[in-house]
Amino acid sequence: MRVLGIDPGSRRTGWGVVARGAGRYELVAAGVIVTDPSAPMHARLAHIHTGLLDVVRTHAPYAVAIEAIFAHRSAASALVLGQARGVALLAAASAGTPVYEYNAMTIKRSVAGSGSADKAAMQRMVGLLLGEDVPGPHDAADAAALAITHHAHALQAQAVTRASRALPAPPAPVRPLPAGVRLGGRSRR
Amino acid sequence: MRVLGIDPGSRRTGWGVVARGAGRYELVAAGVIVTDPSAPMHARLAHIHTGLLDVVRTHAPYAVAIEAIFAHRSAASALVLGQARGVALLAAASAGTPVYEYNAMTIKRSVAGSGSADKAAMQRMVGLLLGEDVPGPHDAADAAALAITHHAHALQAQAVTRASRALPAPPAPVRPLPAGVRLGGRSRR
Repeated sequence: MRVLGIDPGSRRTGWGVVARGAGRYELVAAGVIVTDPSAPMHARLAHIHTGLLDVVRTHAPYAVAIEAIFAHRSAASALVLGQARGVALLAAASAGTPVYEYNAMTIKRSVAGSGSADKAAMQRMVGLLLGEDVPGPHDAADAAALAITHHAHALQAQAVTRASRALPAPPAPVRPLPAGVRLGGRSRR
Repeated sequence: MRVLGIDPGSRRTGWGVVARGAGRYELVAAGVIVTDPSAPMHARLAHIHTGLLDVVRTHAPYAVAIEAIFAHRSAASALVLGQARGVALLAAASAGTPVYEYNAMTIKRSVAGSGSADKAAMQRMVGLLLGEDVPGPHDAADAAALAITHHAHALQAQAVTRASRALPAPPAPVRPLPAGVRLGGRSRR
């Protein structure tokens, strides 16, 4: 049950594959795809795409988690981020892996238990949950946090499903899941 | 000497292949890749990417022209446009075709002779320059306008090069070319 988290960027794209074993998370692999800032953008995007295709083929995740972005500093930087995000989504699509989006607040709550956790707290919690620090730049740990977020929500969804089944009638009201928006594709859950 | 113009968008991506013959332009092919708005974004991006790969393989352009975007309505829409633009650049990169960017003002001046030309005037001028209307939605004609813009600038660059060679010393000052920013790749000019 491997989940691939991706933190796309035109300069650095972080990725992290996290498995869920008996009550704990395990870091399978993580890394950062670094592009040459002096290279033309289409060559940089090709580098990101090829790198992520390789990760998807090697680790065969059952789901991909990516950050949902609703606001950004500026339209210009959003366009550049969008380009990197587009080729990341394309790499996930090529393997038919379903893609899930989680917003920053959900990621922070799922990993650190608080929506106000700062970057340092997030990095510490990712290390604690995985039993080891994610090597390399913070982009890889950010991507691992996304994978953990998806695992946590998949677990929660299962728990709610089991609870609902055990009862003669559905408990009303069922607390709505703060789950990530499913972007589609086929699910193997 | 075929140039492929691409007008990317998550809903409709226009493309147009324009050749330059003896003193005139010729529309080789044009079309619009339409995506299903109800499909997940990564599937839509895959559809755009596959469609453009097919165009690049079929028409083997020596250059790709795309609009340079510096400002946008909002960061949210810039992110969505960026995703479509990213996979368009990736399709160009896959064939090793060099990509050139032209801003809206340059495209309008090159095609209609005026930076204040509106959409209707641009469509008319594209039809006049090609000797035929570009079929389908305006996105295809917008893409053809980009291809014409690249041809016009390639011609101008050649003319300046020839003029410089004919003189014993370079004419000073050489008027700087309002040419598109070259994004890189290898050039076969």
